[in-house]
Amino acid sequence: MKETYNLCQSMLSKKLIKDIQSLGHKKSRDESGFFIAEGPKIINELLDTIPEEVESMYATEDWVAKYSGNKNVTVISDVELQRISSLNTPNQVVAIVKQFIAYEPADYSFVIYLDTIQDPGNFGTIIRIADWFGISHIVCSPGCADRYNPKVVQATMASIARVNVFYDENRTWLQKQRKDIYAATLEGTSVFEESKTGSGILMIGNESKGLSDDLMKLATRKITIPRKGNAESLNAAVATGIILSHLLST
Amino acid sequence: MKETYNLCQSMLSKKLIKDIQSLGHKKSRDESGFFIAEGPKIINELLDTIPEEVESMYATEDWVAKYSGNKNVTVISDVELQRISSLNTPNQVVAIVKQFIAYEPADYSFVIYLDTIQDPGNFGTIIRIADWFGISHIVCSPGCADRYNPKVVQATMASIARVNVFYDENRTWLQKQRKDIYAATLEGTSVFEESKTGSGILMIGNESKGLSDDLMKLATRKITIPRKGNAESLNAAVATGIILSHLLST
Repeated sequence: MKETYNLCQSMLSKKLIKDIQSLGHKKSRDESGFFIAEGPKIINELLDTIPEEVESMYATEDWVAKYSGNKNVTVISDVELQRISSLNTPNQVVAIVKQFIAYEPADYSFVIYLDTIQDPGNFGTIIRIADWFGISHIVCSPGCADRYNPKVVQATMASIARVNVFYDENRTWLQKQRKDIYAATLEGTSVFEESKTGSGILMIGNESKGLSDDLMKLATRKITIPRKGNAESLNAAVATGIILSHLLST
Repeated sequence: MKETYNLCQSMLSKKLIKDIQSLGHKKSRDESGFFIAEGPKIINELLDTIPEEVESMYATEDWVAKYSGNKNVTVISDVELQRISSLNTPNQVVAIVKQFIAYEPADYSFVIYLDTIQDPGNFGTIIRIADWFGISHIVCSPGCADRYNPKVVQATMASIARVNVFYDENRTWLQKQRKDIYAATLEGTSVFEESKTGSGILMIGNESKGLSDDLMKLATRKITIPRKGNAESLNAAVATGIILSHLLST
């Protein structure tokens, strides 16, 4: 199948390496309108679902040997991969992908609202959970991680292409909503006893501080996951998954 | 309160730095019988629950200023912290902690069995989930991450001190069990419809390959988390949390 794509085997220029590396930083991502996705699993899925957004790819021979599409791929060495990768353990292929247009959710059934979720792994995992449960929108307070942080993208496992992630920069979005607003707290009604719903907003708080007071005031329902053991708290992404699995009507 | 503990302000010797750094590696941990815990949140909780196991602590002045216990603490600079820390973002304090004795669960109500869970964040998060739901034992197949890997310890948030993590080196433990063995799969009975139980074993498979065939054969119940959206899979820790929250009787 090698005839079906352009195979460019070349040393990457210093400028190109620098340009790709710069996409590890929010400022460069914002200015360029691109982000980095890495690893065969995510990139193969992006190529399946949004091929037109994948701008360019840089991959080692292992990956190229298995690739049967018709996009341009630059073959690189392991050392070059190491240099352009944003991950601790680079994995065969790096793609430069066009950012998606984020928009304020107006017409929706269910939204996850994240308050200052800073850990990129948690944030990306929550995007993946939303995609699993068929939730199309996440709204983020200022202070959340950047959705195009390479570790966020990695944790979404390509769900980033299917979930609209909107940053509520002025913290005004929630106040305008008229649906039930559920707050995930350590003290509230057991989510096991909460009525199932097809519509509403679930607020998830910061990993160590929980939900901020101004958001908590907007909650119409306070819910909790009953604890039987001794852990002080649950990971924010795990809590999100558990609550959604009990709250959403099947 | 500074009079109540020994404050050793000294440059760490090269040998000591090397010894602490070596605990980032499984071999040195196994040989020494110690592991590293990092960060105020975990270390404060270890000091509360198992103070006698905390062998020594190295902390910057910020942390020491807030510490009111009577353990030896060596005050170190930010640069020294950076050198001895196993984390990308070191956080005020590093403790050397005695390893716990792991044992084969014989008498138990519920056990989580992990098949080749390799991501330390997932592994540690699952230990924390077990602790939240009051599960005292995790059994691991060979190929799981090491429970004392610094990133595992970090993700457990001190739950590592409360959950027995046993490595089933010969892969024989499961075969001897007579309780219900639940397999988490992508195709099975909906966990939303499964009867609640107070006893059994939940098998969770590898992040990308799922459960291996020999383990799957031992399953008495195959269960799944119904998907409504498009994500290909759920994170292993999130899946564990969701399944336990539906399966365990309250």
